Amino acid sequence: MPHTAARTPWKLAARTARMNASAIREILKLAELPGTLSLAGGLPSAATFPVEAVREATARVLRDSPREALQYAASEGFAPLRDWVATQMAGQGVDADAANVLITTGSQQGLDLVAKVLIDAGSSVAVESPTYLGALQAFVAYEPRFVAVECDDGGPLPEALGDVAGARFLYALANFQNPSGRSIDGARRAALARAAAAAGVPIVEDNPYGELWYDAPPPPPIASHWREGTVYLGSFSKVLAPGLRLGYVIAPPALFARLVHAKQAADLHTPVFNQRVVHEIVRDGFLDAHVPTIRARYRAQRDAMAAALAAHLPTSGPFACRWRTPAGGMFFWVELPQDVDSEALLAKALERGVAFVPGAPFFAGTPRRNTMRLSFVTLDPASIERGVAAIAAALGELRDEVVAPRAAAAGGRR
Amino acid sequence: MPHTAARTPWKLAARTARMNASAIREILKLAELPGTLSLAGGLPSAATFPVEAVREATARVLRDSPREALQYAASEGFAPLRDWVATQMAGQGVDADAANVLITTGSQQGLDLVAKVLIDAGSSVAVESPTYLGALQAFVAYEPRFVAVECDDGGPLPEALGDVAGARFLYALANFQNPSGRSIDGARRAALARAAAAAGVPIVEDNPYGELWYDAPPPPPIASHWREGTVYLGSFSKVLAPGLRLGYVIAPPALFARLVHAKQAADLHTPVFNQRVVHEIVRDGFLDAHVPTIRARYRAQRDAMAAALAAHLPTSGPFACRWRTPAGGMFFWVELPQDVDSEALLAKALERGVAFVPGAPFFAGTPRRNTMRLSFVTLDPASIERGVAAIAAALGELRDEVVAPRAAAAGGRR
Repeated sequence: MPHTAARTPWKLAARTARMNASAIREILKLAELPGTLSLAGGLPSAATFPVEAVREATARVLRDSPREALQYAASEGFAPLRDWVATQMAGQGVDADAANVLITTGSQQGLDLVAKVLIDAGSSVAVESPTYLGALQAFVAYEPRFVAVECDDGGPLPEALGDVAGARFLYALANFQNPSGRSIDGARRAALARAAAAAGVPIVEDNPYGELWYDAPPPPPIASHWREGTVYLGSFSKVLAPGLRLGYVIAPPALFARLVHAKQAADLHTPVFNQRVVHEIVRDGFLDAHVPTIRARYRAQRDAMAAALAAHLPTSGPFACRWRTPAGGMFFWVELPQDVDSEALLAKALERGVAFVPGAPFFAGTPRRNTMRLSFVTLDPASIERGVAAIAAALGELRDEVVAPRAAAAGGRR
Repeated sequence: MPHTAARTPWKLAARTARMNASAIREILKLAELPGTLSLAGGLPSAATFPVEAVREATARVLRDSPREALQYAASEGFAPLRDWVATQMAGQGVDADAANVLITTGSQQGLDLVAKVLIDAGSSVAVESPTYLGALQAFVAYEPRFVAVECDDGGPLPEALGDVAGARFLYALANFQNPSGRSIDGARRAALARAAAAAGVPIVEDNPYGELWYDAPPPPPIASHWREGTVYLGSFSKVLAPGLRLGYVIAPPALFARLVHAKQAADLHTPVFNQRVVHEIVRDGFLDAHVPTIRARYRAQRDAMAAALAAHLPTSGPFACRWRTPAGGMFFWVELPQDVDSEALLAKALERGVAFVPGAPFFAGTPRRNTMRLSFVTLDPASIERGVAAIAAALGELRDEVVAPRAAAAGGRR
């Protein structure tokens, strides 16, 4: 009886069988062990948090509008913050009205609300492969069937959209995707929007990392090419601080009221105290000066990881690894030699005091086990060099102990 | 094609057909019109918000642990706050361990998570009648069938629990229920726990108002009688401030991990900044002095409403109204004469500048349309007197214009 907890009166919903603890969560616990150098985290660097700005904004909110900041508030969100988001989006080429902006408790909640409103049990949802694990977790609670859209190094293939016709939506990260770090260029975005419209597959575009560009600003969102067919999700977690849990959803009118109903049922509204504090911080252009400081920090760390990978990992021969330097975001995605399981590599790396995230959990379908995700945002360049060197050494050890003998044995059987 | 939005690519989930805007939400908009005296709200009085304590706690958190308060955090919640909740519960006779405490984004989120983990489409959920509308909204997204458990003025009837066997749970508010104001006494709580255990129907016990008692503290929760068969929901909204959105769920081990999975998928975690601020406020016993000031304020307003109702509404004769003075909470529940529809009464009352909430939306099944909910917490005693007098006048007008002639006509046809 898989859905009845033993000797208790509780009968669990069928969906719980698919709602498991994130494998990454367990790895992150290992990564937090004292003395472990972690390339595993998905956290921004706490050194980027604008503590003084939060302090001042909090004091002003509690001085000027304490009762409003502590009372129940509108499910849609704090109106001036919705206005601010709409204005920002206009700057990115997305014609949004504040009336289409829903403030959410982090963009993770946006994923949950979108799924609640669009997914029926057994309906299909198209995803990139790999894709953001947290989205799979949000969606799976509504019991969809995942279908992977065919992708290349530039993102989903427009000509493959017809293959996922009937999907309730395509979930896509256009900028510096978690976990792969890849971006979709401007021409591909336009082509995807056209192909999706032709196939009748709307798009859920998630953009937590768009502001974290290190070479050039990204092109306008997919949403700018197909406003009525795209739901766009944004977040303050990477440009301000995730502990405030503030994100937003921009949805076309056909969906907006439904999302508000779902929001009301989910938590009535996002803490209005947090919304007012964040609005107080961002209203006068604070991010224009702050975000470049985050970019400068992360860019140097990205460059350090690029150099360390080039110095330590083999890129040719039978044991070659493959990666590309991401143009933004938080992660390198490394393809290990075909017969290396990154979970085995993790075990070896942990022995050397270094943690990372194996790639398998990021695949909705058949995982590519020879992949791993390395975060460069929380460690200084010297630690990044040390961490990558240790992973390379662990890889060498794995090759000598496990993979090479196995290859020899396989050769012997032929 | 009811679930396809016209001329858009979006296909809505079937559940959205049942997820409507709350009728109360619309009424609250009317109630906010300038010059309207509102007995409609479910908001606590902003005069009770401890602004100075929030100010000091916020400053301390941002001084002592700014990075931790602004970073991602554990889905289960901030450990010291979980400890504090567990200790509070022990004081109420519920043997809870911090390991069983999940911090939620308001107790509304607790309702959503419990529903996500326990309700399958088509499964049945037992509710009181009337019951809290927000719970119905949270549950309905998971497509249950609602069954009303038979109730009397003392709450659900233990002997009726067998009639709802097979329900995934019974949702019950034991203290000063919203909307009816009624409480379940200690003997009935114990009997309900026994009957529910015998029927195999677990209980979701929601307690947002328990601290708002005006005559005597309530007896121990139902959860104290059946720990492994009860999920208990609590909230900081009524004792501190709702704008911080902090609640908690106490769940037996059989459910706890499932709720954490659902929490992680829903919003990763509740804003840790808010959790740390609230812990900083409550840790040294602040509520022991603060909550009595809320009680004193609301008690006086409750007494004013009791006096106004007694002075203005008929309690005998063919047009008698019926109500009981609640021992706590925020609401009076008035049963109007059988043939008075409270929505018609609301229209008349609004003409006199007074708003309240008709009772119909609080019923999962057939509504009793001759009911209304009156809040006494946001208005001073003089305004309460004025509001009740206006409703009584509107009722008199309705009787003269509509009900009496109709009765006469009906009599004429006999």
